Amino acid sequence: MTTRLYDVYDARCPSRTALDRIGDKWTALIIGILAERPHRFGELRRRIDGISQKMLTQTLRSLERDGLVHRDAVATVPVTVTYSLTPTGATLIEPLAAVRDWAEAHIEVILTARARAAVDSG
Amino acid sequence: MTTRLYDVYDARCPSRTALDRIGDKWTALIIGILAERPHRFGELRRRIDGISQKMLTQTLRSLERDGLVHRDAVATVPVTVTYSLTPTGATLIEPLAAVRDWAEAHIEVILTARARAAVDSG
Repeated sequence: MTTRLYDVYDARCPSRTALDRIGDKWTALIIGILAERPHRFGELRRRIDGISQKMLTQTLRSLERDGLVHRDAVATVPVTVTYSLTPTGATLIEPLAAVRDWAEAHIEVILTARARAAVDSG
Repeated sequence: MTTRLYDVYDARCPSRTALDRIGDKWTALIIGILAERPHRFGELRRRIDGISQKMLTQTLRSLERDGLVHRDAVATVPVTVTYSLTPTGATLIEPLAAVRDWAEAHIEVILTARARAAVDSG
């Protein structure tokens, strides 16, 4: 018997869906940029190299639905839409920065391991 | 011009593939268990509720190829295979624990936001 209310190791626990959400690489990249300041859609797209318009739209919508990102539309012509972190979204800044930093700090060791694995199996 | 050697915001940077690897929810769950001690395949499968044999095999192979998990096979009958973290894999313990903890700590706020979003769009 566990005393924990939520347990990511339990397949039926909803926290599994939260793990999926924050594990997404686009989420990690978007949160990292919004951590600096609110951004417009086009700014986000330019800063996240390789993200498609569709993927950025979908990811922002999911983050908004999960209460992590706030979408602010001002009725200018054309309409000005700005995205910012909600207080809950801001709690993601630190863990996701650690994940991005890990990826950049360890990719060289990983590439070396991959090259060795390719030789061993070749 | 950037002074950083690796940049996850650059689509051509190999660190993007590392971000994908550690973002995977199964990776986060497997590393969390191997952080305690080495485990046999069957033990891992029993502790990670809902993972299929195929998915566990594939994820362990990727982690081994990336040099994050060590596979040790002892020639007993039947063969005894044990998985453990490599020194590089052990550097993932802390960031991934933060990610799992975040998922468990914030799923309630997320579920509330999702319910509100469903009402708003209904």
